[in-house]
Amino acid sequence: MSETENQPGDVLFQRLALIGIGHIGSSLARAIKRQGNLVGHLAITDLDEAARARATELGLADSVHGEPADAVAGADCVILCTPIGTYRAISKAMAPHLKPGCIVSDVGSVKRAPIRDMGPNLPDTVHFVPGHPIAGTEHSGPESGFAELFDGRYWLLTPPPGTAPEAIALLRQLYEAIGAIVEEMEADYHDKVLAVTSHVPHLIAYTIVGTAVDLEQHLQNDVIRFSAGGFRDFTRIAGSNPVMWRDIFLNNREAVLEILQRFTEDLTALQRAIRWGEGQTLQDLFTRTQAIRRGVVEARQEVPPSADK
Amino acid sequence: MSETENQPGDVLFQRLALIGIGHIGSSLARAIKRQGNLVGHLAITDLDEAARARATELGLADSVHGEPADAVAGADCVILCTPIGTYRAISKAMAPHLKPGCIVSDVGSVKRAPIRDMGPNLPDTVHFVPGHPIAGTEHSGPESGFAELFDGRYWLLTPPPGTAPEAIALLRQLYEAIGAIVEEMEADYHDKVLAVTSHVPHLIAYTIVGTAVDLEQHLQNDVIRFSAGGFRDFTRIAGSNPVMWRDIFLNNREAVLEILQRFTEDLTALQRAIRWGEGQTLQDLFTRTQAIRRGVVEARQEVPPSADK
Repeated sequence: MSETENQPGDVLFQRLALIGIGHIGSSLARAIKRQGNLVGHLAITDLDEAARARATELGLADSVHGEPADAVAGADCVILCTPIGTYRAISKAMAPHLKPGCIVSDVGSVKRAPIRDMGPNLPDTVHFVPGHPIAGTEHSGPESGFAELFDGRYWLLTPPPGTAPEAIALLRQLYEAIGAIVEEMEADYHDKVLAVTSHVPHLIAYTIVGTAVDLEQHLQNDVIRFSAGGFRDFTRIAGSNPVMWRDIFLNNREAVLEILQRFTEDLTALQRAIRWGEGQTLQDLFTRTQAIRRGVVEARQEVPPSADK
Repeated sequence: MSETENQPGDVLFQRLALIGIGHIGSSLARAIKRQGNLVGHLAITDLDEAARARATELGLADSVHGEPADAVAGADCVILCTPIGTYRAISKAMAPHLKPGCIVSDVGSVKRAPIRDMGPNLPDTVHFVPGHPIAGTEHSGPESGFAELFDGRYWLLTPPPGTAPEAIALLRQLYEAIGAIVEEMEADYHDKVLAVTSHVPHLIAYTIVGTAVDLEQHLQNDVIRFSAGGFRDFTRIAGSNPVMWRDIFLNNREAVLEILQRFTEDLTALQRAIRWGEGQTLQDLFTRTQAIRRGVVEARQEVPPSADK
């Protein structure tokens, strides 16, 4: 990318609006600013006054708005970075203010629900390209974001059939420019993959940490004090944004319940093996899972985002 | 600790023997060598010829033995660093060669079973002080160890009632000298705490990674490729030593099954909340678990060992 100052013709979008300036929204703002020449004007909006004040202090955008309508007015691209449960109301509120030809996207961890909740509310004159960066930490809020969050990470796009290829290509250019690897897939398939890689693991982590919360007080204190690898990792996962995760589970119900059913069957079999002292069953599984770990390491997705180059 | 050269009187143990030179054994050898003045002669033994050769190449000890009997002969302290399933046979094999007054310990993640399996085989003339460092990574083998593994980590001792206080005090000195924080507790209580903090989390991680292994091949490939936080962390956990973990589950059956029962009940309740769209139930739990995460962070146990100072 050129290092010269931005001319109107140089940028990908004259005006880009981010709705929601939490962990992902603020990382995206920072990543866009880091590149310098992607966007003419970066407008952001957030329902939360404190988040807007923080975003202003941090200089995350060219303009900060209390109303989504004001942020999206005149934008060529609008990206929702809010919990999935807000999509319906936000899409209704902003629809009358969207410029024809505008690209509308999101960063939600579920992709069928946005198509259901937002699609019908958006005017036919805009391009709707749902997306999901496979990135993020357990932290929340505008101060938790960082420009390097998407470096080397996948950003999945799930455009509905018939989406204009130019709109997909522009969004791809934006995300590639901030370091992501862009892939397209079908929304239902996305939701099934993510149920395995993210949603069910989070639910399990929340559950075991919750089980510990219910222990007698002295045992709970020692569980925290002597927190070993395993539980310690789980508490990190279970420290994530409660509203965001509530919305993920409510909006990927079928895939989560299906994987959870398989998980429960598998866990019951292991429980039985422990009860009856069937060591070989345990050792066989523990050996097979090592191959998956090797695959993850080879896919170079093993390094937590914040430790990335 | 003094920096002068070792005189026989300066060291804690004239001869210390490590049985098993895997991840923990080799870290312990390195940590002892780093301090310089703790041990007069460090003897190690391992059943595996390749591990012995590697330990020799790496210069981990003053002598490397194929037979536990040779390593423990004349030792003031013997520490088992092998999977728990080997304890019975090793204790029988070494018992006749133990010097009167020798301190025998171990590093196993379960503490009731060693007392059951080793205690009866050891002569009355030795001091048996079972122990467990809350430290380790998912890696195995002599090359995976590092001297800093125990820095700032807890090392739990579970001496049976009546153990000589001088023996406990000496072992405490050794482990504190290599950076650990030593605590004493009752073996059954240890096993219950560890079932929550380590054993059940590992079982759950192994299970969900195993569930992924059984997915259709194309889905499995994408699960590995788009492995997000959550699953990625679980694959790390599920990459641990299969034999060691088999032995942990077989030897902490009751505590693991009890916690697993609670976990399953809690998971079933969440599954039901997802099925019936009960968002408030989910959000309440996800909010309560954040307090536990804060506790872990405040207990300063949140940093993985390898990233420690």
